[in-house]
Amino acid sequence: MGIEKITGRIATDLEGLKQFTATPGEGCTRLPFTKEARDAVEYLKSVMNEAGLEVHEDEVGNVFGTWKGENPDAPCVMMGSHYDSVRNGGDFDGIAGVVCAIEAVRQLKDRGFAPKRNFVVAGFCDEEGMRFGTGYFGSGAMLGNRDVEYCKKFKDTDGISIYDAMKEYGLNPEKIGDAKWPEGSIGSFLELHIEQGPVLDAEQIEIGLVDCIVGIQRYMVTVHGRSDHAGTTPMDMRMDAVDAATKVISKIPDWAREKADGTVATTGYINTVPGGMNIVAEKVEFTVDIRSSNNDNINDITNRIRAALERETKAMGGSYEMDNKLTITPVKLSEEMLQIMEDDCKEKGYSCKRLASGAGHDSLEIGQVLPTVMLFVPSKDGRSHCPVEFTKYSDFAKASVIMTGLAQKLLEK
Amino acid sequence: MGIEKITGRIATDLEGLKQFTATPGEGCTRLPFTKEARDAVEYLKSVMNEAGLEVHEDEVGNVFGTWKGENPDAPCVMMGSHYDSVRNGGDFDGIAGVVCAIEAVRQLKDRGFAPKRNFVVAGFCDEEGMRFGTGYFGSGAMLGNRDVEYCKKFKDTDGISIYDAMKEYGLNPEKIGDAKWPEGSIGSFLELHIEQGPVLDAEQIEIGLVDCIVGIQRYMVTVHGRSDHAGTTPMDMRMDAVDAATKVISKIPDWAREKADGTVATTGYINTVPGGMNIVAEKVEFTVDIRSSNNDNINDITNRIRAALERETKAMGGSYEMDNKLTITPVKLSEEMLQIMEDDCKEKGYSCKRLASGAGHDSLEIGQVLPTVMLFVPSKDGRSHCPVEFTKYSDFAKASVIMTGLAQKLLEK
Repeated sequence: MGIEKITGRIATDLEGLKQFTATPGEGCTRLPFTKEARDAVEYLKSVMNEAGLEVHEDEVGNVFGTWKGENPDAPCVMMGSHYDSVRNGGDFDGIAGVVCAIEAVRQLKDRGFAPKRNFVVAGFCDEEGMRFGTGYFGSGAMLGNRDVEYCKKFKDTDGISIYDAMKEYGLNPEKIGDAKWPEGSIGSFLELHIEQGPVLDAEQIEIGLVDCIVGIQRYMVTVHGRSDHAGTTPMDMRMDAVDAATKVISKIPDWAREKADGTVATTGYINTVPGGMNIVAEKVEFTVDIRSSNNDNINDITNRIRAALERETKAMGGSYEMDNKLTITPVKLSEEMLQIMEDDCKEKGYSCKRLASGAGHDSLEIGQVLPTVMLFVPSKDGRSHCPVEFTKYSDFAKASVIMTGLAQKLLEK
Repeated sequence: MGIEKITGRIATDLEGLKQFTATPGEGCTRLPFTKEARDAVEYLKSVMNEAGLEVHEDEVGNVFGTWKGENPDAPCVMMGSHYDSVRNGGDFDGIAGVVCAIEAVRQLKDRGFAPKRNFVVAGFCDEEGMRFGTGYFGSGAMLGNRDVEYCKKFKDTDGISIYDAMKEYGLNPEKIGDAKWPEGSIGSFLELHIEQGPVLDAEQIEIGLVDCIVGIQRYMVTVHGRSDHAGTTPMDMRMDAVDAATKVISKIPDWAREKADGTVATTGYINTVPGGMNIVAEKVEFTVDIRSSNNDNINDITNRIRAALERETKAMGGSYEMDNKLTITPVKLSEEMLQIMEDDCKEKGYSCKRLASGAGHDSLEIGQVLPTVMLFVPSKDGRSHCPVEFTKYSDFAKASVIMTGLAQKLLEK
């Protein structure tokens, strides 16, 4: 099978799917339970049908294509990703992983392969969580981790709940339990995804072998001081929330750098209250996002932040709150599956590198309970979640060849 | 003259003036060229008339009450402050200085004093600059520092210019030049004002003798980095504007403290762009407000900020801009007049202290060209520009006695 033909098939599918966006010309906006989502699912179904798969849409909007194996009751090999996007995102995040899974079927069929067990292509609904402020909805429901209450709880900015959006879309949210796959029915999960970071592109490496999805802790920190006139209040009589907060914020990136193992820490949002040019701030709110493949590093930085807040707010005479918004522990991916792909890369002469995924993925939800592996393709300049997101179709082709090789190995038994 | 009677008269006037607010129950909102301003001016006129003054409202809304002296052509002694307020401000900022100037006339008349030169009570219009984003409008026009172009340039949030607001109010902005007093006609300016800071209240001192109005430099700083995914971008591949900016901001208050001479420096506003919890900030905007009675200190801190921005943005790979928004050099007040009041405080047993004014006042505009002095009364907890602003009427009374003593000395010659 020539790599050119594979590149062409992937290009055709991805170009076809590009059109399903609510913001043409301004990137891909394909939120869950919308017309664009419906159109993309119908398109995927037709491509799956053409590839000879048995197509099934489940109770939460996931779409599956099954290639029956010799022993259909053995735990299946599942490969896929999500078909939704963020607002004004790129054309590849998620959907490329679904297309490359269908492509794996085509490659295996081209070489006359017959699977011993079922091979299932998955297109998950609402991984990004953009519309309802959630995430991993479809893959979570497949594992039985979502229920009716959850669907009623989360709402979009128009006040529409997941529950109502599902009904409007033609699904029955009361039947969300039916989306759960029986225990033991999925043997392994394989996900191909764009890196969404700059490492592979900067180092000109063709394939990223993801050995870990990093853990995350997120906090909203509030530092309380006192509002005072910036001209008339002597330095030793003020409780300046900006002074205390920035003395903490300015150290956080250095604590991550010290780890020198890929640990990252970011303050992306700072808000000063009241925010007047000539008013000492009574309150500063800021976010902290810490990620590492080593959970101890995350806990250490969290502890340092808390100690620094304690020290600086005490010196200032104020107080602070540090609210945990998200805690995810790192997920190790399957060493056995990584080794198979690494060996294959060497054999085919593709450059590859082990790396951790700094972003969450369906594999984060799934990897907690099932043998899971991810493969990254380079993102030009590391850009993603934006219209300029770009990966060469030939890079997808090479990666699909490697992941197809792994799938074949798993399906041979 | 019993201090109780003086306290009572000041209380009567200030209680009467309290009612002229656009936000009853929520502090004083008396913006220039509004119904509340008109009502306050008419009230002041009637109090001035009762005190035996010749009342005159000029072309920009200032109100003056003149007590003719033996030699009306000699440079006058002027005493007063402003009658406008900020939004939801206090009942004393500005207006108390006008009331205490009228009270000075009453005290001098009570003791049968006859002035050698004119004593002029001034109630200035639009010192705060709240409505049009300006300041010192009335006192500036009195000195010939405002013109028709200026009135057309500045507009309120409804798009109404000073020019149009003046016309609507019944003034002729084309005649703004007539508001200018002839060179040499004002011999000295005396202003009584609340401190708007915590020093006198905290140290339980009755009278503040203001020897200087501090200089100010204000900057809007922009630090440019690059937006990146907070999870997938390694620490050494990001250009984090928050990292660079907070490394500078966190040092600014310490540089002011080091001066240990009342120099203050404040960052009251920080804005992160795009401001996402999981996005490395591409831009941080922040303000710096530096004030000192020593202009060298202001320049030194400005230079340190610039050097730190240079260093941190270079380390990060980004850039910065530092836009000057305001530069005022410190204004020294009249040592001769301060000495007279200090001696009088000692004689009367009033506690007093020399201090700098960290806020601007009409005296800032006037003190640049005329012998000027200010006297501060304590502000409870340093609060001002808010409804809880509070000074005891008896404190105003004591301060008015001291300033009246000074006025008498100046009017005797």
